[in-house]
Amino acid sequence: MSAQAETINEELVTRRDEDGVAIVTLNRPKKFNALSVAVLEALLETFDQIGKDSSVRCVVLAGDGKAFCAGHDLKEMREDTTREAMQALFAKCSEVMLKITSIPQPVIARIHGIATAAGCQLVATCDLAVAVEEARFATSGINVGLFCSTPMVAVTRNMPTKQAFEMLVTGDFIDAATALQYGLINKVVPADQLDEAVMEMATKIASKPAVSIALGKQLFYKQLEAAKAVAYDMAAETMTCNILTEDAQAGIDAFIAKQPMPKWKGC
Amino acid sequence: MSAQAETINEELVTRRDEDGVAIVTLNRPKKFNALSVAVLEALLETFDQIGKDSSVRCVVLAGDGKAFCAGHDLKEMREDTTREAMQALFAKCSEVMLKITSIPQPVIARIHGIATAAGCQLVATCDLAVAVEEARFATSGINVGLFCSTPMVAVTRNMPTKQAFEMLVTGDFIDAATALQYGLINKVVPADQLDEAVMEMATKIASKPAVSIALGKQLFYKQLEAAKAVAYDMAAETMTCNILTEDAQAGIDAFIAKQPMPKWKGC
Amino acid sequence: MSAQAETINEELVTRRDEDGVAIVTLNRPKKFNALSVAVLEALLETFDQIGKDSSVRCVVLAGDGKAFCAGHDLKEMREDTTREAMQALFAKCSEVMLKITSIPQPVIARIHGIATAAGCQLVATCDLAVAVEEARFATSGINVGLFCSTPMVAVTRNMPTKQAFEMLVTGDFIDAATALQYGLINKVVPADQLDEAVMEMATKIASKPAVSIALGKQLFYKQLEAAKAVAYDMAAETMTCNILTEDAQAGIDAFIAKQPMPKWKGC
Repeated sequence: MSAQAETINEELVTRRDEDGVAIVTLNRPKKFNALSVAVLEALLETFDQIGKDSSVRCVVLAGDGKAFCAGHDLKEMREDTTREAMQALFAKCSEVMLKITSIPQPVIARIHGIATAAGCQLVATCDLAVAVEEARFATSGINVGLFCSTPMVAVTRNMPTKQAFEMLVTGDFIDAATALQYGLINKVVPADQLDEAVMEMATKIASKPAVSIALGKQLFYKQLEAAKAVAYDMAAETMTCNILTEDAQAGIDAFIAKQPMPKWKGC
Repeated sequence: MSAQAETINEELVTRRDEDGVAIVTLNRPKKFNALSVAVLEALLETFDQIGKDSSVRCVVLAGDGKAFCAGHDLKEMREDTTREAMQALFAKCSEVMLKITSIPQPVIARIHGIATAAGCQLVATCDLAVAVEEARFATSGINVGLFCSTPMVAVTRNMPTKQAFEMLVTGDFIDAATALQYGLINKVVPADQLDEAVMEMATKIASKPAVSIALGKQLFYKQLEAAKAVAYDMAAETMTCNILTEDAQAGIDAFIAKQPMPKWKGC
Repeated sequence: MSAQAETINEELVTRRDEDGVAIVTLNRPKKFNALSVAVLEALLETFDQIGKDSSVRCVVLAGDGKAFCAGHDLKEMREDTTREAMQALFAKCSEVMLKITSIPQPVIARIHGIATAAGCQLVATCDLAVAVEEARFATSGINVGLFCSTPMVAVTRNMPTKQAFEMLVTGDFIDAATALQYGLINKVVPADQLDEAVMEMATKIASKPAVSIALGKQLFYKQLEAAKAVAYDMAAETMTCNILTEDAQAGIDAFIAKQPMPKWKGC
């Protein structure tokens, strides 16, 4: 597919497609990409559209400006302080996070700067994450009196228990090397190699048969929450569906015949 | 708050409060702080009192003498070998462990020597842990024929599966650097810097708004056991409660106004 | 016990017993030990027999030839491509995996070469794993269009989430040092020390009281899937059963008396 550009909600979130990879960019650089209600709605809409777009094989989530994402928009949160407004905000935010893991395409976080509070939650939520050496991560809400409870859900599912607890109660930053060691991210690279590293991972994933990736990602999070024996039943069913696809049959036949892989049919 | 000293059950467990930090010390040095029934009861009472004491913002669990804690008191266990006595002992021990994670204040294990069997379980159970370079950890019950089944519950929730299995079936020690790598502890320091490192972590936590820390810790372990979507519902509710507190509203306002944080009201 | 040799299903899986350690070897070297239906059945039968054999205290799973195990037998899978055949195959494979964790003896994977797809699942499934420096691991099914869904169940329960996701969607190999860091294996050794390292671990485990090991292993995976409070109830019950055994009582008495451990009675 030739490069194509498309913009949704231009001021807040942009989308650009390139060779089957959709690059979604948080675009409130002066606000360190703070997740206002409008940004969350734009993200939700963008990921929803991507989830239905079979031309997209992999997604990159990036941020414009100095920061990757500094979390919620605290200023906006003080404008309507009713319980209802707060509930609606956190529900919308959780909806975005669950959407990221429910779309069929893998999502890679591209972290070029700080990722704090709900910004750190975005990193933990994305299926994969690549960061620059200078990137830093914190669940820093506690520093202003607001414990990062919703970020905790994602963060504790992506790193060791005690290390997550420490980040949450101290609010301290960890650097990219530490985040890698904890499993919060997949790769650390020098800043001038970030796009190359992200796109290498994205295009590799985009080159795999989309239906197999979609079946696998759908099962990934679901089976993690199931008892092992139940998880095996679900996985055996998914494997069976997968192997009955044209792509898997053609792929296995090519492998046996020591031929190059076929052109995948996709979803 | 000025330093204050208070002793409960003087021979077995001591408590000393300092600037909002309660330092609880196992005090059976000649028995390597073995957890007799009386020690478990003293621990339970101490943690129960601390949980209700709003002047305490963080807890340190330490051990007097050479060892941090060598686990159950095997000699005492051989005095009454009835099934009922054993059931009561292990139930009491589990009650202590669950109490540590259920009190509102974070608990830091201060490990200056060996932590074996139920002593290693204490380390895994505390929310946080700081150890000296010479500290060593083992679930060594298997060496005398008693597999560390109850320690396993805490240990397997704090480190990788295969590494936990190895410790349990071999009974072998791991050193502090390995424990850090596995996520069993948060920090390793030279012996002469242990108190400084522990108190630095404790006073940092003590400086945060207590109600936010309490809401966060209460949710931490609960959400870990829930399905992710359920965890998000619980977390959104906690965030909403948190942001409606005076402390969070004052903290966020101070942040927006680029002012120093206010003096927190506490619980 | 003196060394003894016994062969089941000679062409596919061999078993050799040595001092309480059963060494089970995948024996299709020319097929990189691919898991055909017949191999899976031989493995199931072998592990089933071992599980009932109280002379075996520990098990080693090895592979003959260049590879440890290259996963399913893709060629055989193309011979009967009905949904029923596929369902039966994956169900059989899951049965083998669940059998490995349900027998009373710990199972150590001895990895001397590549472990891919269901071969990597075998590594993740074994309770313990020792590999040579040159060993490599991949969930590579996606490369032929067949996402490693059933291997995912084992792999995601043995390493960090994001790192597992990356392996599954890229199909890339990781080396032994990386597998160790991720917790997929327990130990990496030079190739000429593999047997020594494996047998050292196996004989150490074999020297422990079998009934205590069996009680512990049985609880290990069960309690991991339970809520913590429930896990503690189960563990307290197991500890009580364990301490009422002759072995544990004799072991504890010897410990108190500062005597060497007694000769264990076994199961």
